[in-house]
Amino acid sequence: MRIDNVETIKDLARGAVLLGTGGGGDPYIGQLLLQQEVREGRHVEVITAGELDDEALVVSVAGVGAPTVLVEHLQAKGVCRSLLEKMEKHLGRKVDAIIPAEVGGLNSIIPLALGAQAGLPVVDGDGMGRAFPHIEMVTYSVYGSRACPMVIENELGDSIIIDHATSDRKVEDIARVVTGALGAMVYSALYPMSGADVKKKAILGSMSYCLEIGRGIREARAECDDPFDGLMKILNRPEIDRHARILFDGKIVDINRETRDGWHFATVAMRGLDNPDEAFVIETQNEYLTARKNGEIACIVPDLIASLDRETAEPVTGEKLKYGQRLKIIGLSAAAIMRRPECLEVFGPAAFGLTDSFTPIEELA
Amino acid sequence: MRIDNVETIKDLARGAVLLGTGGGGDPYIGQLLLQQEVREGRHVEVITAGELDDEALVVSVAGVGAPTVLVEHLQAKGVCRSLLEKMEKHLGRKVDAIIPAEVGGLNSIIPLALGAQAGLPVVDGDGMGRAFPHIEMVTYSVYGSRACPMVIENELGDSIIIDHATSDRKVEDIARVVTGALGAMVYSALYPMSGADVKKKAILGSMSYCLEIGRGIREARAECDDPFDGLMKILNRPEIDRHARILFDGKIVDINRETRDGWHFATVAMRGLDNPDEAFVIETQNEYLTARKNGEIACIVPDLIASLDRETAEPVTGEKLKYGQRLKIIGLSAAAIMRRPECLEVFGPAAFGLTDSFTPIEELA
Repeated sequence: MRIDNVETIKDLARGAVLLGTGGGGDPYIGQLLLQQEVREGRHVEVITAGELDDEALVVSVAGVGAPTVLVEHLQAKGVCRSLLEKMEKHLGRKVDAIIPAEVGGLNSIIPLALGAQAGLPVVDGDGMGRAFPHIEMVTYSVYGSRACPMVIENELGDSIIIDHATSDRKVEDIARVVTGALGAMVYSALYPMSGADVKKKAILGSMSYCLEIGRGIREARAECDDPFDGLMKILNRPEIDRHARILFDGKIVDINRETRDGWHFATVAMRGLDNPDEAFVIETQNEYLTARKNGEIACIVPDLIASLDRETAEPVTGEKLKYGQRLKIIGLSAAAIMRRPECLEVFGPAAFGLTDSFTPIEELA
Repeated sequence: MRIDNVETIKDLARGAVLLGTGGGGDPYIGQLLLQQEVREGRHVEVITAGELDDEALVVSVAGVGAPTVLVEHLQAKGVCRSLLEKMEKHLGRKVDAIIPAEVGGLNSIIPLALGAQAGLPVVDGDGMGRAFPHIEMVTYSVYGSRACPMVIENELGDSIIIDHATSDRKVEDIARVVTGALGAMVYSALYPMSGADVKKKAILGSMSYCLEIGRGIREARAECDDPFDGLMKILNRPEIDRHARILFDGKIVDINRETRDGWHFATVAMRGLDNPDEAFVIETQNEYLTARKNGEIACIVPDLIASLDRETAEPVTGEKLKYGQRLKIIGLSAAAIMRRPECLEVFGPAAFGLTDSFTPIEELA
């Protein structure tokens, strides 16, 4: 799949916001970088994992930190190339392909922009099938790949390499404080893996899914009275193990936001439009973690919760939510691999301090 | 100069506490490591800077963090060798010699222990002629060498490389938060320099000075009624630009300690033994910064302030001071290079937020 035009990029970014499940960073800046590449005649080739040599060196590239800071720092171009060069120098070999760490939001677009700049293919896959707030919350880590060596750099050229850590959770702790010292938003290259690793450990097809969603929303606006009709036909396809449901249709009546320990925490309260007695609450740590309707769990991490404008079905990130906004909230099933016990241990409810256990969206009525 | 016996090590450590000017870390642990090397038949060769090839690769090695934590972590041996290996891999060449970053306290002994382990010579010099709380407070940095690449590692094997930073002060900021994330005490290799750099930028002869002081105190105890008589003959030799004076003879009547932002701040108040109306106050940020007698500056950074047991002339680190303790306080001139304007800018009074200007000890009566 070749990404070489602005419409495709916009579709992809729209899908990325939905899979970002409230977080993942607004892909707007990433879009601009990628559009610039395309306008200058470059393109990026998105390849399937199957096309990789087993011995290929594949590296993830991601922004780390407070996404709101990014908007003021559109200098990512030089930084990302330098990340690859430093990783190559440290490992003593060339990088063959890039793979996103997460598919949601900004971090699905940054790898594509870098792929176009560096002439490297980007693998159609990622390690979350969504966005998560921690570096260790990827299938790569659950199945034995290591985040280190991880190269971190800011737009001033300050750079560090986390060479070795006793756990990927420790990498997260180090990266979090380093990010603070380097100015709250940094770029990173991490999880160097072999092609064989990627084939076994990645969530495959997540970039195409992103594009399918974003394009589907655009087409549904033209073709359907209610664009959600078209969108749900894509998201809810039980025959290929995709489950989705509109959880709520209402407006925001209260938002509590707090930035703590480098994360953005929020509680969003909504009321039903038709039935004002219906109460709906979303809990957030960068990304949406739980949705409760009248106190009962309606969707819970790692399943995805997405907030969309109720008229246009445009996905909206959590940081853009505001009082009075009218939204439809959708619950989506996570990829099957994400629901395995060893994965739930790392990014299931308990990993976020929640006492609720995981129940798949298709079993919650 | 060959260091191959326990008595020499003890002398060296004693002198290191004095030049540590209240901080620098208790060299006790470093001594044990070095004694073990010597007992196992190894030794370390201390060479003059003049013996270095101009093209030699010389690296500093230092502990960073809260020295009190170190006592519980006597695993430095493997860590330090690994530091050298990581630095060599990163730079793509062998390290030829080690040079201390500071001569005071622990960080004058760690390089010797590593030199003995790795079979590398240690240069008779350092970058402070004393101890300072910041990484950028070295003559190496003032005269254009860079702290990066800096390798940081803890005893668990977590390791990071600060590859590039916009300033050495930024390296300090990054290292400080990384140290916290890695467990409050880490080892580091930093300031890779050429032999030619070392000849121009280092404070020369500081290791021999350390040994001269420590040995002098031991011998003075045997030879003099008051060991301070013998000690002052070493410290105060105006003909070679060494100036020193006993600033105060008294006991501690109050200590205020505070750990803040990774540093140890303290104010030590004393009263005269003969004249209880005499008030003496020492201000500390890891190391002693100012000594005031009846409100007037008696000695000020970068000149050195040392606290010694008033009977035995044993130097005492700031963290060991306690209420009622009887001490003599000595003021010593810093090396001439340290008093140049470009150096005072980096580690003179203003760099510590003090409003007093620097006046050499020999001009303060």
